[in-house]
Amino acid sequence: MEVMKVLHMNGGVGETSYADNSSVQLEMLSMTRPILEEAITGLYLSISPWPSTLTIADLGCSSGPTAFFAVSEVIGAVENLCRKMGHNEPPEYQFYLNDLPGNDFNALFRALPKMQEEEARCFFTGVAGSFYGRLFPCKSLHFVHSSLALQWLSQVPRMIECNKGNIYMASSSPKSVMDAYYRQFQNDFSVFLKCRAMELVPGGCMVLTFVGRRSEDRSSSECCSIWELLAMALNEMVSEGLIEEEKMDAFNIPQYTPSPSEVKAEVLKERSFFINHLEVSSEVNWSGNNKNLNGHRSSSNGEDREGYHVARSMRSIAEPMLISHFGEEIMEDVFHRYGMLIEDRMAKEKTVFITVTVSLTRRPA
Amino acid sequence: MEVMKVLHMNGGVGETSYADNSSVQLEMLSMTRPILEEAITGLYLSISPWPSTLTIADLGCSSGPTAFFAVSEVIGAVENLCRKMGHNEPPEYQFYLNDLPGNDFNALFRALPKMQEEEARCFFTGVAGSFYGRLFPCKSLHFVHSSLALQWLSQVPRMIECNKGNIYMASSSPKSVMDAYYRQFQNDFSVFLKCRAMELVPGGCMVLTFVGRRSEDRSSSECCSIWELLAMALNEMVSEGLIEEEKMDAFNIPQYTPSPSEVKAEVLKERSFFINHLEVSSEVNWSGNNKNLNGHRSSSNGEDREGYHVARSMRSIAEPMLISHFGEEIMEDVFHRYGMLIEDRMAKEKTVFITVTVSLTRRPA
Repeated sequence: MEVMKVLHMNGGVGETSYADNSSVQLEMLSMTRPILEEAITGLYLSISPWPSTLTIADLGCSSGPTAFFAVSEVIGAVENLCRKMGHNEPPEYQFYLNDLPGNDFNALFRALPKMQEEEARCFFTGVAGSFYGRLFPCKSLHFVHSSLALQWLSQVPRMIECNKGNIYMASSSPKSVMDAYYRQFQNDFSVFLKCRAMELVPGGCMVLTFVGRRSEDRSSSECCSIWELLAMALNEMVSEGLIEEEKMDAFNIPQYTPSPSEVKAEVLKERSFFINHLEVSSEVNWSGNNKNLNGHRSSSNGEDREGYHVARSMRSIAEPMLISHFGEEIMEDVFHRYGMLIEDRMAKEKTVFITVTVSLTRRPA
Repeated sequence: MEVMKVLHMNGGVGETSYADNSSVQLEMLSMTRPILEEAITGLYLSISPWPSTLTIADLGCSSGPTAFFAVSEVIGAVENLCRKMGHNEPPEYQFYLNDLPGNDFNALFRALPKMQEEEARCFFTGVAGSFYGRLFPCKSLHFVHSSLALQWLSQVPRMIECNKGNIYMASSSPKSVMDAYYRQFQNDFSVFLKCRAMELVPGGCMVLTFVGRRSEDRSSSECCSIWELLAMALNEMVSEGLIEEEKMDAFNIPQYTPSPSEVKAEVLKERSFFINHLEVSSEVNWSGNNKNLNGHRSSSNGEDREGYHVARSMRSIAEPMLISHFGEEIMEDVFHRYGMLIEDRMAKEKTVFITVTVSLTRRPA
């Protein structure tokens, strides 16, 4: 599986699109607001006076309503600060919206004009490429934001043993599989830090939010059970002869959901950044905490239940990867089973996502 | 007709795509090579020493093979110059590839990774928006390239008389229609110059190539007959009852093909730029001068003739506009008739495109 080609949210605006299924993500994003505001104040202090143009990159922006979260938050925070400091002239903003080349940039760009009218001094560009490589010229950025993207790895870890019956780290995964996942995270995140260290100006800031975990146990249910249930759905289909066992054995999700201490360890090792702030977010229910926004859509076929809503949300994220490996035909079946399993689990346990946010400042060179 | 929404080349890579039908455009582009090289040398002299990052915008880049012409030419010219001047360290390049939001940026971005591997110090971004407005922060660009895009107007000129039987300027157009077209060109191009004057650094350069004409006669066949033949095809269909007459009356192409003196007049009026160079290109046959590249494709239905090849090329450019006005159903018919009329005209007359290129330098503020 070439992650660069198949890792992208479902495009467009249809029922299985990410744009139409990202309300939980938006809720997770909004919890990072205080950290973002603090980081903008920190940026102001470290690069004061403001340059005439602030350049901001949002890495892994995707194409739904979440894509403009960073834009509006950063502008809001800067304008607030300018008012407080008595600056009459806020800067111009150059926003770089980045995602992999498979992202639906057409949809992203067609949503832009409205933003541009509101923010006359705001300029947008799209950047297609992996953030596990250089994306920008040296010292060209003041601020980097990345949310719910850095848990994705650059590739499925190379494994020397089969992760039998699993598609992600699980309590039944061999130790060598767990180690391979962790090593891939270490490699990828350290490359990410090295690249951004080159691209940020001294004093430039980053706020990074991972889907992660509180526990030091890599197979903790707080990060693994959402994939464990997908594995269960796929295993059912293997046992019914609908999926070949070898296909299932060869499929693993290129993701790593780190703990705060694992994030911290890589930052300290790489040495280009100060840590301003490192925290674990409040929990967000799989179907979102805000019941007015999420779940409970009415539907005649019983698929209005929360489990199916969560499955739709996961589908908008994982379907391109699954299609490239298993083919398109079985997708309805997979996500129907997955929805039932999620529904069942949610009835029995507290099922939440946890995020880890770190705020960093580039050391002077 | 909202030009912002419907003016875009056909996307994708199929038979009617711009990507597959832009060899004549590539030929026209390649004729501007010496002017581009000269402009890069001029840029070097006016902003020497090189900044560590050269920022270059290509405005109206589209999404076919032509989209990367400016990229490779600029890099080639800079590296040549660096060698000549004994600089060991060429700059990093930040390329902004711009087109309207309807452009196929997904296709553009998916063609990028290959370029990026070859040019490690080269960074690409996409910018969706009209160049008849601000696209970039103040003083953020060193070089602007735009080729075969500026003949497109921001809107169909507002006309007080009907341009009966025509879809573009023609010898039978009322004087008020001709004036409306010229005024729209003047407004649009002066706005373009004002915006770029703000965005370029002092000493920054622009090379702009229009589809244009040599003659001072605005309805000269050298720029108008390609549209006149499309009008003939549409008029045929009106007389056969396939298109409503009112529909035809209400359709005009948002294009203006200026003469060198008209381009010069606007630049002098706007005052932000020196003219380094202004020239009319050699003629390029409608089907291209290089017969090995263009036309003469084999086909069993007689559509391998040059006329149909030219019609396909025009289709890749004009179809989205025609569809939005006349509907999709009649397109095959329109372009089949258009192909026959082009074929016929090419047999009788020399049929060529002419381009006008101007090279400009931003005056110190």
